[in-house]
Amino acid sequence: AADIINLLPPDTAGTVLRRISREDYEDVSELLKFHEESAGGLMAREIVTVRAGKLISDVIAKLRSELDSIEQIHYIYIVDSEGVLLGRIPIINLLVIDPGMKVEEVMDRDILTVTADTDQEEVAAMFSKYDLYSMPVVDENGRLVGRITVDDIIDVIEEEANEDITMMAGTGDEEFYERSPIRLSRARLPWLLTGLFGGMASALIMHHFKGSLESVLTLAFFVPVITAMGGNVGIQSSAIVVREIALGGLSISQTGGKLLREMKVAIINGLVIGTVLLTTVTVWQGSLKLGVLLGLCMFIIIMWATIMGAFIPLMLKKAKIDPALATGPFITTLNDILGIAVYLGIATVFLGWLG
Amino acid sequence: AADIINLLPPDTAGTVLRRISREDYEDVSELLKFHEESAGGLMAREIVTVRAGKLISDVIAKLRSELDSIEQIHYIYIVDSEGVLLGRIPIINLLVIDPGMKVEEVMDRDILTVTADTDQEEVAAMFSKYDLYSMPVVDENGRLVGRITVDDIIDVIEEEANEDITMMAGTGDEEFYERSPIRLSRARLPWLLTGLFGGMASALIMHHFKGSLESVLTLAFFVPVITAMGGNVGIQSSAIVVREIALGGLSISQTGGKLLREMKVAIINGLVIGTVLLTTVTVWQGSLKLGVLLGLCMFIIIMWATIMGAFIPLMLKKAKIDPALATGPFITTLNDILGIAVYLGIATVFLGWLG
Repeated sequence: AADIINLLPPDTAGTVLRRISREDYEDVSELLKFHEESAGGLMAREIVTVRAGKLISDVIAKLRSELDSIEQIHYIYIVDSEGVLLGRIPIINLLVIDPGMKVEEVMDRDILTVTADTDQEEVAAMFSKYDLYSMPVVDENGRLVGRITVDDIIDVIEEEANEDITMMAGTGDEEFYERSPIRLSRARLPWLLTGLFGGMASALIMHHFKGSLESVLTLAFFVPVITAMGGNVGIQSSAIVVREIALGGLSISQTGGKLLREMKVAIINGLVIGTVLLTTVTVWQGSLKLGVLLGLCMFIIIMWATIMGAFIPLMLKKAKIDPALATGPFITTLNDILGIAVYLGIATVFLGWLG
Repeated sequence: AADIINLLPPDTAGTVLRRISREDYEDVSELLKFHEESAGGLMAREIVTVRAGKLISDVIAKLRSELDSIEQIHYIYIVDSEGVLLGRIPIINLLVIDPGMKVEEVMDRDILTVTADTDQEEVAAMFSKYDLYSMPVVDENGRLVGRITVDDIIDVIEEEANEDITMMAGTGDEEFYERSPIRLSRARLPWLLTGLFGGMASALIMHHFKGSLESVLTLAFFVPVITAMGGNVGIQSSAIVVREIALGGLSISQTGGKLLREMKVAIINGLVIGTVLLTTVTVWQGSLKLGVLLGLCMFIIIMWATIMGAFIPLMLKKAKIDPALATGPFITTLNDILGIAVYLGIATVFLGWLG
C-alpha cells in the first residue's frame, strides 16, 4: 500500500490517508518514512507474532481467531516483551508439534533478517541465493517491524532488470506500456541529444584533421569501422561488469581481477579483429601500409574501449552512482570521439609514410 | 535435479542416474523428457496429494508421517482416482478447519494450472501477475504431474533478463562469472566480426560516393553523427519492444499499435533532433543548404531506424526467433550501413545545389 500512496501528489496522499481506518493509517504513515527502494519500503506489517512463553495450542487458537485478516502466512514469529525477534515456526510444523510445548522450545533460532534500511537489491539477492519465501525485517535493536514476501521480490528483480535495460538502451525510466508519444519522446530525447553533441564533437575532430583527409580521402572510409567497433567492444565489456555488479557477485575488492580479465579479452579480440582488418584493407586497397595502420589503430581502440567499458561502471559503483549509466549511449559516444581522435591522430603522424 | 543432469555429457548422466535410488531414478528419467525451459523442466515432483473422499484428519495424519521428506509445502492437492487434479487446500487452513470434514468440501476448486510443455517465460509471467507461491503442473488429461515453486521462478526471471542483456550487449550466452579470457573472447568475437564486416560495408558505401566526398569533404565530417543517431534511436525502440514482449505484455495483435506509437515518437524526435542539427550545422559551417540537407537526412534516418527497431523484434517473435536478437549489434550495424547510404545518396543528388 505504501508504494501507491508515495506516487500521489502530496495533497491527494493526505486525502487517501484520511479515508482509511485509523489502524491502517498508522501502518502506512510509518512505512512512508522508509525509502521506497529499501527493505522498509517493501515490507508488509501483516505478521503473526507470539510472545515467548506461549504454548503451541495458544498459537493455533490465535490463528483461528485471526485467519480472516491474514492472506499468506508462512511463519509464526516469536518475540520477547520488547518486541525483539527470537525465532520463528513454519506454519506446517504447527500441525505436527505437540500442542502442549512452548513456542521457544520448537522455534528456529537461526534465521536471516534484514534491517529496514537495507537496499532492495541486496534483499533480492538474499532471497535468490537462499531460496526464501519470506524474511523478517527488524529495526536497529532487533525488534520485529515487518516481513518481506517473495512476490514483492519478483517485482524488485523485474524492476532492476528493466532499469538496467532502459539505461543500456538510453530510454529513461519507466517506459514500458507508456502510450503517450510526447512522454516517450521526452524520456528518450535527452539521451539522443547527448549522442548528437557527441557526434558533433566527432565532426569537429574530423574537421581538425581536414588536411590529412584531403590528402588521403580513403582514411575517411574507415571512420564507421572505427566507431562501430569501439562502440560494440565497450558495450560488451560494460554490460557484463554492470550485470555482475547487479547480480551481487562483484565487490569493489574484485575490481582489479575484473579489469585484468577484460584486458586479457581485449588483447585476444584486438589481435583477431586487428589482423582481419589489416588483411582485408591490404587486399582491398592494395596498400599494406594502410592495412597495418588500420590494424594497429583497431587494436589500440579495442584495448581502450574494453578497459573503459569495465573501468567506468566500477568507478560509478564506487562513487555510489548507478553503474548501469555506463552501458548507455554515454560510453558509445565517448568511444566514438576517442576512437576517431586516436585513428586520425596516428594516421596523421604516419601520413608521409602512407603517402 | 533434472537441470544438473541435463548439462552432463550423455555417458556421465547414465552413471549419475544409476547411483541414485530407484524411486528418484524414475522421477528424474521422466523429467528428462521435458524441455529444460518448459514448466516440465522446472517442476518438482515432491508434492502432497490426497484422494477425494478423505477427511481433513487423514490429511493431517499423512502430513505427520511424511513431514521429514517434504521441505516447502504450501498446499495439499486433491486428486481423483485417475490422478486428475480437483482442487487444493492451503496448509494453514488445515489448522482451522473441522478435522471431520471431507477434503472436497473445503478445497479451492478455482486454481491456475499449467501444462508441462508451457514455456518457462509464460509460467514466470503468471507467477508475477498473480503473486503465486506455487503452481500445479498437469498433463494433457488434467492429471497432476508436479508443482513449480516461486524460488525456481526467480531463477527464470533472472536468467531471462540476463539473456536479454547479453543479447543486447552482443556477448553471447552465459558469460557471467566466466574467468577464462579465451572462452570470453570466443563468445564475443562472432558479434564483433559481424560488426567489423558491417563497418567494411559502410566503408564500401563511402568508397562508392568517393566523388561526392572529394568535392565536398565536409560531408564526411558528419558521418559519425549519422551513424551514432541511427544506432541510438534503433536501440531505444528495439529494447522497449523486446522488453515488452519479454514481460508478457505484448501480443502479435498489438503489433500495429506499437508500430504506430513508435512512428509518432520518431516524428517528434526526428523533428527535434533534425532542427537542432540543422541549426548547429548552419551556424558552424555557415551554410544553410548543408544544414537543411543534414537536418532532413537526420529526420529520415530517425524515422527509419525507429520503425526498424520496433518492426524487427516483432517479426522475429512471429517467426519464433528470440526477439532480443534485434537489440544487439545487428540492428546498429544495419542502421549504420543504411544511414550512410541514405545520407550520401541524398547529398549526391543535391550536390550541385550544395556546391
